[in-house]
Amino acid sequence: MPTSTATSKGAATRDLILDRAYAIACRNGVEGLSIGELALAAGMSKSGVFAHFGSREALQLAVIEQGARRFGEKVLIRSLKQARGMPRLRAIVQYWFDWVRDNRQGCLIMGAVSEYDSRPGPLRDAVVEAMRHWREATARAVSLAIETGELREDTDASQIAFEIFGVALALHQDTRLFEARRARAQAEKAIDRLFKSHST
Amino acid sequence: MPTSTATSKGAATRDLILDRAYAIACRNGVEGLSIGELALAAGMSKSGVFAHFGSREALQLAVIEQGARRFGEKVLIRSLKQARGMPRLRAIVQYWFDWVRDNRQGCLIMGAVSEYDSRPGPLRDAVVEAMRHWREATARAVSLAIETGELREDTDASQIAFEIFGVALALHQDTRLFEARRARAQAEKAIDRLFKSHST
Repeated sequence: MPTSTATSKGAATRDLILDRAYAIACRNGVEGLSIGELALAAGMSKSGVFAHFGSREALQLAVIEQGARRFGEKVLIRSLKQARGMPRLRAIVQYWFDWVRDNRQGCLIMGAVSEYDSRPGPLRDAVVEAMRHWREATARAVSLAIETGELREDTDASQIAFEIFGVALALHQDTRLFEARRARAQAEKAIDRLFKSHST
Repeated sequence: MPTSTATSKGAATRDLILDRAYAIACRNGVEGLSIGELALAAGMSKSGVFAHFGSREALQLAVIEQGARRFGEKVLIRSLKQARGMPRLRAIVQYWFDWVRDNRQGCLIMGAVSEYDSRPGPLRDAVVEAMRHWREATARAVSLAIETGELREDTDASQIAFEIFGVALALHQDTRLFEARRARAQAEKAIDRLFKSHST
């Protein structure tokens, strides 16, 4: 079945390009993606790269989606192994903090937020969509902890999700500008206080 | 005194260039500063712009310092009019939240953090210095509220400053990606809870 083989080879090449593009964008930003540099990193011609994505914007979109997917797998999907309620909510926070530590040299999505938050268009839409999805998933994990009776019934899940994001953003910033270990300790303390003040 | 006149004219021109550079960098980032665009905006030649700053990096440094100064004046210096303790601490937070609202199209310093946090050099050093100064000023305001007896004696001022930054960062991000008014309400609620849980 030569067609199927060609298709699967095409998909593998696309994955390879996307992998290299992700690495470049983590360092230089999604706007810093150059087709020339990418072609060099993937060992292909520029036209070969274009053949797989059609345009620079389509490639950038695919890279943003890749960034959201990797974060989602490492943090959200991994947390599903924990029991619903506080175990899962705490796992989300811990995996997220680990992600910040492990991606100290550049988190694609956080970089993309800063690049596109005031530039309307499909790339900004993709970033907003990724952040909204992530916020909703966090709020849902909080809601489950209310359902299990571990957090008080009058807890505002969306408020807690907002505050968890705040702690993670401060951790992200401090890890990159100041001392990573001190930042992690402060972030843990903030989260403990947040959960404790809403515990039953 | 022709020399003095020339000097004051030179300073005025430098201020004008810096003002235009600040506006461009708010939109396009400090890395997005082009001497050509700046010369056009200031109604000067490129060599005229260079004569005032010597290099692109010196201009970028001056712009980062300008960003830090503007934020400091609008938030920190303004808050000094309030009584030390909780009135001043609350004023810092309110002026900061107002700053986020009024600079929705781009906050130079927040943009510069994302641009330089993983690029060692004098520009990163300037960003780290500005953020460290701001964090210390916030912690100092918390310490004064402990001294006045409004916050508990065992309050960790640096921890509270970290958490205030977290709330401000979440507000900054949500204001730009989602709904500004809802974000402000959530940020106010987070700060109220933070202060309340450490009140005497």
